[in-house]
Amino acid sequence: MHHTDNPTLALARELIARPSVTPEDAGCLELISERLRALGFACERIDAAGVSNLWARRGGEGPVLCFAGHTDVVPPGPLDAWKTPPFDPAIVDGMLYGRGAADMKSSLAAFVTSIERFVAAHPRHRGSIALLLTSDEEGIATHGTVKVVEALAARGERLDYCIVGEPTSVDTLGDMIKNGRRGSLSGTLRVKGQQGHVAYPHLARNPIHAFAPALAELAAIEWDQGNEFFPPTTWQASNIHAGTGANNVIPGTCEVMFNFRFGSVSAADGLKARTHEVLDRHGLDYEIDWHLSGKPFITGRGALVAALSGAIAETLGIDTRLSTTGGTSDGRFIADICAEVVEFGPVNASIHKVNECIDAAAIEPLSLVYERTLHTLLAA
Amino acid sequence: MHHTDNPTLALARELIARPSVTPEDAGCLELISERLRALGFACERIDAAGVSNLWARRGGEGPVLCFAGHTDVVPPGPLDAWKTPPFDPAIVDGMLYGRGAADMKSSLAAFVTSIERFVAAHPRHRGSIALLLTSDEEGIATHGTVKVVEALAARGERLDYCIVGEPTSVDTLGDMIKNGRRGSLSGTLRVKGQQGHVAYPHLARNPIHAFAPALAELAAIEWDQGNEFFPPTTWQASNIHAGTGANNVIPGTCEVMFNFRFGSVSAADGLKARTHEVLDRHGLDYEIDWHLSGKPFITGRGALVAALSGAIAETLGIDTRLSTTGGTSDGRFIADICAEVVEFGPVNASIHKVNECIDAAAIEPLSLVYERTLHTLLAA
Repeated sequence: MHHTDNPTLALARELIARPSVTPEDAGCLELISERLRALGFACERIDAAGVSNLWARRGGEGPVLCFAGHTDVVPPGPLDAWKTPPFDPAIVDGMLYGRGAADMKSSLAAFVTSIERFVAAHPRHRGSIALLLTSDEEGIATHGTVKVVEALAARGERLDYCIVGEPTSVDTLGDMIKNGRRGSLSGTLRVKGQQGHVAYPHLARNPIHAFAPALAELAAIEWDQGNEFFPPTTWQASNIHAGTGANNVIPGTCEVMFNFRFGSVSAADGLKARTHEVLDRHGLDYEIDWHLSGKPFITGRGALVAALSGAIAETLGIDTRLSTTGGTSDGRFIADICAEVVEFGPVNASIHKVNECIDAAAIEPLSLVYERTLHTLLAA
Repeated sequence: MHHTDNPTLALARELIARPSVTPEDAGCLELISERLRALGFACERIDAAGVSNLWARRGGEGPVLCFAGHTDVVPPGPLDAWKTPPFDPAIVDGMLYGRGAADMKSSLAAFVTSIERFVAAHPRHRGSIALLLTSDEEGIATHGTVKVVEALAARGERLDYCIVGEPTSVDTLGDMIKNGRRGSLSGTLRVKGQQGHVAYPHLARNPIHAFAPALAELAAIEWDQGNEFFPPTTWQASNIHAGTGANNVIPGTCEVMFNFRFGSVSAADGLKARTHEVLDRHGLDYEIDWHLSGKPFITGRGALVAALSGAIAETLGIDTRLSTTGGTSDGRFIADICAEVVEFGPVNASIHKVNECIDAAAIEPLSLVYERTLHTLLAA
């Protein structure tokens, strides 16, 4: 611990020094578990297929407030492009540099220190404090949070509130909370025709021609109008391919890749059904491989959003914004067993890049925001 | 000359023995020229860029009846797949085998022997007899018939009747005359959009979506209704490509290859204009590279069709059919300087294949059909 470090910055340094490139944990979970056990947490490892997962809980009652996150980081990329070694945390001009500094080892450190202070002040707090941590969020994410959620669901354990520590702030700590994410539903469509010579189209069936009116219709559909939290659902064809380059051959198939981004107004099954309805009505011979890479989730303006945005206002003096933009996160999985899920963490400008960094002076305030949220929801 | 050969079969053998793989002539034109000069033909070589071309004419008056064709052949392909060496003509089970036997050295031989007999019987025939032969019809065909037609047009020389000796018969010699061919107009279309992320379509412009309604319209247009000789004009998209495989990227461009096959009812410029009208009306940002690979031509039921179909009926006892189906031939070029162009020759089932062959017994009758046509049109 550097003599100028506060406890949260010190723990962030310790975590960054562990090169936990996904799906490696590199000892991060054990370091955190030691700190939690000292506070009376029951720490349970739910590892799966080489992925390290931790479920830690203090208290047997509800409500359960869970902090969720990941110890793994994306690979550092070209080492010679880093100003400082990526796994040797260093403060330069007030910024803490290192892979994972923003995504999301500072958040993990802030989880721990906020809990330490809160438990010290409220050893007999209401409900339960929990942590759900994994070493596989940046990778394929099939043996991480998903497995823990399945294990909890299997034994009937539910959460009331969950704060995912992803870096959601845009320009300054506290300016944005994610209170939901759009879902992502992809399809690979193969429209089948009958190959032939362009001079004799009556002996062939051109799948490009057959598909064209359905494509025009799919591109023009208003799938929904969105709602308070989500923009309207979108459908985009990202790829279309037919033909081998010869200009005198009518191709036998036309392949299209498309993607829905959808809010909570629509459901994946409904979008699939409406897609099939269009294709069927146009009399197409086709098949679709569907892939649901993320269901949407949304947390309205309930107790968790109120507690967290209040904590941000009081601690940082910022009137935070709610947003559902951006990609997917593990929040989509946790929403299956938790009524209120939000994401909140540091500024995300440098994540996944070389020279990932975070304002060193923003780390302790992040811990204070988490602590005040704990206080609002669980103080006895 | 084999002792059983008639003169036409003998000449066909001599021509096949010359390995005139396109654009080589291998002495075929000189062999033919010798025979024609003996009949009083003026033989003029209009060679260009390594292609051998012959323009031969007997007589200075009109009407001009021209026989047209090519001495070049397509490559033989795998030699071990041939029953007999491709340039060593051989009769097996009544079929004359060899590369060019059907396409179209037997026709060339029949041109020569029909003229020899006709000139012997009618040394002071009406009008003129001509031959337009090239060694580049099977290749890129830019320095063959095109060049001779340009030379003739430049000096104001026009033809009245032209018989192209392409193998047009389907099942038996005489069953089909081609009295025209459809035109072929190709386009490569690039529709421009703005690349972006599928999650943020409002920041991009998807060229697949933009093009879809225009594509549907182009595929549905009735370009014309055809006429007595041609089926309706067709438009076919043969290739469509957009996207690099990633399912989260809206592509920046969509490229489409398409082709018109059109009869004499429509003109290339009109089809181009109508295509642009559709694309413009849909507000697309695009460019098209156009390629006109063949204008349509048509020869109605005039003197030439009457003479040739009459000769077929009298010589072979067959009620021939007129057709405009199939690919393109040099007839499209000759039509620029000749009012009546037809194609007529032997059965085409084996052309461009290994073991190309022709019924040896059909070669002399082909010469007789040509001779009777000469008689009808030019006998004094």
